[in-house]
Amino acid sequence: MSETVRLTEEKATALVAAAFEASDVSPANALSTARALVAAEADGQVGHGFSRVLAYAAQAKAGKVRGHAVPEVSQAGPALLRVDAGFGFAFPALDLACARLAALTRETGIAAAAVHRSHHCGQLGAHVERLAKAGLVAIMVANTPRAMAAWGGTSALFGTNPIAFGAPREGHEPLVIDLSLSKIARGKIMAADQRGEAIPEGWALDAEGNPTTDAGAALKGTLVPAGGAKGAALALMVEVLAASLTGAVPSREATSFFDAEGAPPGVGQFLIAVDPGAASGGTYTAAFEALAAAIEAEDGARLPGTSRHARREAARRDGLTMSAALHGKIAALAQAG
Amino acid sequence: MSETVRLTEEKATALVAAAFEASDVSPANALSTARALVAAEADGQVGHGFSRVLAYAAQAKAGKVRGHAVPEVSQAGPALLRVDAGFGFAFPALDLACARLAALTRETGIAAAAVHRSHHCGQLGAHVERLAKAGLVAIMVANTPRAMAAWGGTSALFGTNPIAFGAPREGHEPLVIDLSLSKIARGKIMAADQRGEAIPEGWALDAEGNPTTDAGAALKGTLVPAGGAKGAALALMVEVLAASLTGAVPSREATSFFDAEGAPPGVGQFLIAVDPGAASGGTYTAAFEALAAAIEAEDGARLPGTSRHARREAARRDGLTMSAALHGKIAALAQAG
Repeated sequence: MSETVRLTEEKATALVAAAFEASDVSPANALSTARALVAAEADGQVGHGFSRVLAYAAQAKAGKVRGHAVPEVSQAGPALLRVDAGFGFAFPALDLACARLAALTRETGIAAAAVHRSHHCGQLGAHVERLAKAGLVAIMVANTPRAMAAWGGTSALFGTNPIAFGAPREGHEPLVIDLSLSKIARGKIMAADQRGEAIPEGWALDAEGNPTTDAGAALKGTLVPAGGAKGAALALMVEVLAASLTGAVPSREATSFFDAEGAPPGVGQFLIAVDPGAASGGTYTAAFEALAAAIEAEDGARLPGTSRHARREAARRDGLTMSAALHGKIAALAQAG
Repeated sequence: MSETVRLTEEKATALVAAAFEASDVSPANALSTARALVAAEADGQVGHGFSRVLAYAAQAKAGKVRGHAVPEVSQAGPALLRVDAGFGFAFPALDLACARLAALTRETGIAAAAVHRSHHCGQLGAHVERLAKAGLVAIMVANTPRAMAAWGGTSALFGTNPIAFGAPREGHEPLVIDLSLSKIARGKIMAADQRGEAIPEGWALDAEGNPTTDAGAALKGTLVPAGGAKGAALALMVEVLAASLTGAVPSREATSFFDAEGAPPGVGQFLIAVDPGAASGGTYTAAFEALAAAIEAEDGARLPGTSRHARREAARRDGLTMSAALHGKIAALAQAG
């Protein structure tokens, strides 16, 4: 077993933020981004947690992410915000978008924020959860670098294009749904490729559009959408909402979130928030609790997102684990600043 | 081959409207509903077309649908409309919702309509298409009588809970995506049951939650969601948006759209419209056309909804076909009025 370091969330946040500050990121942007990565790690979303720190720092150093970007909000209509992330990290822009969207939605009943010139937004569930904790029902979509083909096609035109949904509850943590529209996360195929293992049929297509079990061929091809043609159609919907509608770079042209090569990815996020009391005429809370009770009464069924809460509590109690190798690299980066 | 009658869309609309009027439906509601069913038939969505006429008429006669309902709109916030369909047919309420929503969205940038005390809304694509033809990007969700279980459960808590998406194009028909979240439409299983045929494994579960190829057992059980756990999570999202959020009857309690038994189904629909010019800072049209061109450049891929346009043109040119048996029943109903 490889050596690990145990850190409280506070210590982990301070360490990661220091590494970003040392990589030409403003203190405010470094803190926002560090908090988001640590929160993802605590939620067990490790693909959006500590594993991203070195790649993010390298992108900031290279200028692929503008570490000193200051996100700007403009009012595109009485209920519609545009948020320019300025080719910086996504999290400072989303902190601002969520705060402004929550305040606006309480006035208008429904409102949206169109975020563009943005970057990897991590676990979408965290953003809709913030809106749900503010008492709002929230939908969020994001486009991501190319991964999936149009149905019947072979070129990767769409990202994994995730959808998230948050709904407030009284006396309980909010409902949080967070899913990508590919059947399997690209990370699982990358891991199989690194181990030299085959992948199950049905996960991916090669560059010619044929089913493949070769992880390397899959990485040169496309991911299979969840639910076949229906998932591909939903990925197109997300592409239009998160990129065409926000003015962001489309998935097929966005550069990688993982390396420091090329122009900023410039992807987009689109967030919608609704006041459930206003929309339902005051019946939302009772209706949602009855639905939740019906689901929880089923043997074997549960509300999505509940395992995340358990992991989060464990992290708060026991701290987070980081490999000693990664800890050493992040600490060296922070000390070099 | 069974005998058929060929009708122009105008004649079909007049015939169906007369049958509804003879079934205690107001002339305005009869016309709105007849138009929607004929349009679905012309689009090739036969499950939402002529096949519904007799069941609709029977429900109006029985008072399960209130044929003289007058839909009412109230402003729940500057950007949020509530539409009370009054336990009438859905189409008059949705005509009103789409017209008011289009006008409001042009002022606010984004707006929504929460429709409740509603009924079967047919092909959702037709409603988002109207909003897209008005220059807006539109999302619509609906809940429907119980059909699918929560993931891991056995009771039907969700309907097939469709999602539709419309996006305007310049010089082309809008993009229209319209899909239910079950892997297979219930109608296909009903047809197999009537023919006494087995269904493929993977379509449905029996009442104990086990996979079944017995169509009869499937009809007593639940439909499998498209994309497995992800489809089930999206069905829950639609249930919250279309029912809990609008104040409608939840899928698990809604009565059938097919028979005249019991209370009105009282389901809900939730529609969101966004002004794409405002959201994108004026870049939407060029961005969408570039995306459409990238999809159409792929061998074997196409934009969803294009086959519907071809069928619609054929119907306009050649008229619609109705079985002589159904035509006789509808004509008898109309003449009895």
